[in-house]
Amino acid sequence: MQQKRIAILGSTGSIGRNTLEVIDDLGSGWRIVGLAAGSRSEALARQARKYEPSHVAIADNSRFEHLRGALAGDITVLNGERGLVDLVEKSDCDCVVAAIVGTAGLPATLRAVELGKTIAVANKEILVTAGAIIMPLAKRTGARLIPIDSEHSAIYQVLHAGRRNEVRKVYLTASGGPFRTATIEEIHNATLDDALNHPTWSMGPKITIDSATMMNKALEIVEAKWLFDLAPDQIEVVVHPESIIHSLVEFCDGSLVAQLGTPDMRTPIQYALTYPERRPCRSTPLDLVGIGQMNFFAPDFEKFPALRLGYEAARRGGTAGAVLNAANEAAVELFRRGDIRFGEIAELTARVLDRHELVAEPTLEQLLAADRQARDEVSQCVFC
Amino acid sequence: MQQKRIAILGSTGSIGRNTLEVIDDLGSGWRIVGLAAGSRSEALARQARKYEPSHVAIADNSRFEHLRGALAGDITVLNGERGLVDLVEKSDCDCVVAAIVGTAGLPATLRAVELGKTIAVANKEILVTAGAIIMPLAKRTGARLIPIDSEHSAIYQVLHAGRRNEVRKVYLTASGGPFRTATIEEIHNATLDDALNHPTWSMGPKITIDSATMMNKALEIVEAKWLFDLAPDQIEVVVHPESIIHSLVEFCDGSLVAQLGTPDMRTPIQYALTYPERRPCRSTPLDLVGIGQMNFFAPDFEKFPALRLGYEAARRGGTAGAVLNAANEAAVELFRRGDIRFGEIAELTARVLDRHELVAEPTLEQLLAADRQARDEVSQCVFC
Repeated sequence: MQQKRIAILGSTGSIGRNTLEVIDDLGSGWRIVGLAAGSRSEALARQARKYEPSHVAIADNSRFEHLRGALAGDITVLNGERGLVDLVEKSDCDCVVAAIVGTAGLPATLRAVELGKTIAVANKEILVTAGAIIMPLAKRTGARLIPIDSEHSAIYQVLHAGRRNEVRKVYLTASGGPFRTATIEEIHNATLDDALNHPTWSMGPKITIDSATMMNKALEIVEAKWLFDLAPDQIEVVVHPESIIHSLVEFCDGSLVAQLGTPDMRTPIQYALTYPERRPCRSTPLDLVGIGQMNFFAPDFEKFPALRLGYEAARRGGTAGAVLNAANEAAVELFRRGDIRFGEIAELTARVLDRHELVAEPTLEQLLAADRQARDEVSQCVFC
Repeated sequence: MQQKRIAILGSTGSIGRNTLEVIDDLGSGWRIVGLAAGSRSEALARQARKYEPSHVAIADNSRFEHLRGALAGDITVLNGERGLVDLVEKSDCDCVVAAIVGTAGLPATLRAVELGKTIAVANKEILVTAGAIIMPLAKRTGARLIPIDSEHSAIYQVLHAGRRNEVRKVYLTASGGPFRTATIEEIHNATLDDALNHPTWSMGPKITIDSATMMNKALEIVEAKWLFDLAPDQIEVVVHPESIIHSLVEFCDGSLVAQLGTPDMRTPIQYALTYPERRPCRSTPLDLVGIGQMNFFAPDFEKFPALRLGYEAARRGGTAGAVLNAANEAAVELFRRGDIRFGEIAELTARVLDRHELVAEPTLEQLLAADRQARDEVSQCVFC
């Protein structure tokens, strides 16, 4: 087998570090040729000394000199947004792991799509924000997008049990977050500590809050729409507190096919790296009998109004996903600072999304402008 | 698309009738070219008049004249074991649905395998009894065996989510039958009515009793071993009373993939007929939220000693499956007649299987001899 050459955008974050662990275990068939981070230059330098990629890049220009000083002469050190794009172009990678949080990694990911590479998509924002550009582009260049999100990885895996035109529906499972059994009032006034207390997955604060509002599922609806070319009414959310079934596909003959596993990101990361093969993985095997029980509930759109926004953005397409994502990010930031109540995250986001003037087939500039404007409007809304 | 030409061995039974319904719904792409039954000549004649196959066959020679009298001259009417074989040979079918209960359909099914046809396997006995002959033969001729059993159909479907050498384990789900929560004593002394009271599936009496002893799962272990080329320790049974997950495959990377559905035989029947495509099916869609809960338990080998026999027969291979199947069939018959207690079904079968002298690579004659001998021994055991 030919060696697979991997570049990781976001190598010092949680997904990036897990990806390196997976590659350690996979052995000599996979090689790191590029590593990029936002601002953690020390961690990046340590990784670069261990994996000896040909290229490294740091988005934060102020950390460039530090990084360059910390590395020997063999490694090309790049910086800024342009540096990430150059890393994708010049490292001769086969597969780009897109794991930089936010829109900072978007131009580099787009470049990878243009170049027809395989992209392991760990960062929801990429497709939620720029699905309208990325998917038609990938179709033209033959770039393959393999999701790392556990739900979308599940769907990607089980789609192999049928053909694309045989898919009737997709069920995204949702843990329901910490407020699954709370009342509307309790949710509206929830504190930051309440929101950060997630029952099954251990993740960063932004994602954990998105799980509490169920905005994560709203973003996943948009992601699924783009990734699998689905109509919004083909996507259903089912609350499954045990998070064992990662998602399901219903085929036209009435068969449902589901992927199940323990909540371990290494399995979907590795699947994206080894696809179309599977390799032994260190993840804890699932013990169905030990789990004993799985439960399923309908999602409550009144308690979790964010969900509606996901369908809304999926239905509108174009710039709507960028607005949903950016407005929510800004609103979550306000909540974390104590400026708004928990219930206002979805309210503010809804207000901004509802008044957004859609661009159906946007350019990257128009997407980024929609993103900026949404953030501005959230700040204006809260102070008006 | 080219028309698929179907022959049904066992067209007047439950699977046969469901197959005809499925073909009615599928429309013009599928055509019945052969129909065969055991002894129900009137039902067979009615079917033949409706579907106008080129060939019909009746296994029971005493019903031959009746059948021939009931049908017009265009349809070739065959009879006896040889008649079933001729039907497979002469009807120019692409796909044989093997649904004749017992070993009566075995020579005809073997002929279909020899001729490299697609065989939709509805009858467990075929592979349990003759897997040692059928699978190597199918490998040589390129015959494709697609199971209709809901568990094996599930496995067949989800195997497409990976490669064969990536399978770590297969989980056969079991409803647990009517005695799942009963004590050993209650099970041992269960009445025929108790045993026929199955919680989820509505099936014939023999299969329902097999479900109560869990011998059905034992037979499925043997079937899975042959069909999917698995070692016995790659096959696990998990009790899942709701029977929603029809079975699961665990891949080497820790991912489990499962097929789920309502308990409707039409889905696996149709899958076998349309494979590798899927077509819309009239089966009731699964409502996960309506179901609400799924439970999983370890099987109890003390309460259900039949399970051990499945592993034993799978481990030994050769003629062992034929003995397991035949001894069980004879013991179930004795139980239905009131000659033995419920608990003695597995006991008698175990005794016969334990003393059987294995033929590792049997001929069809040796398999049928082992089958006959096992039945004789069951009768001898009970009267000694």
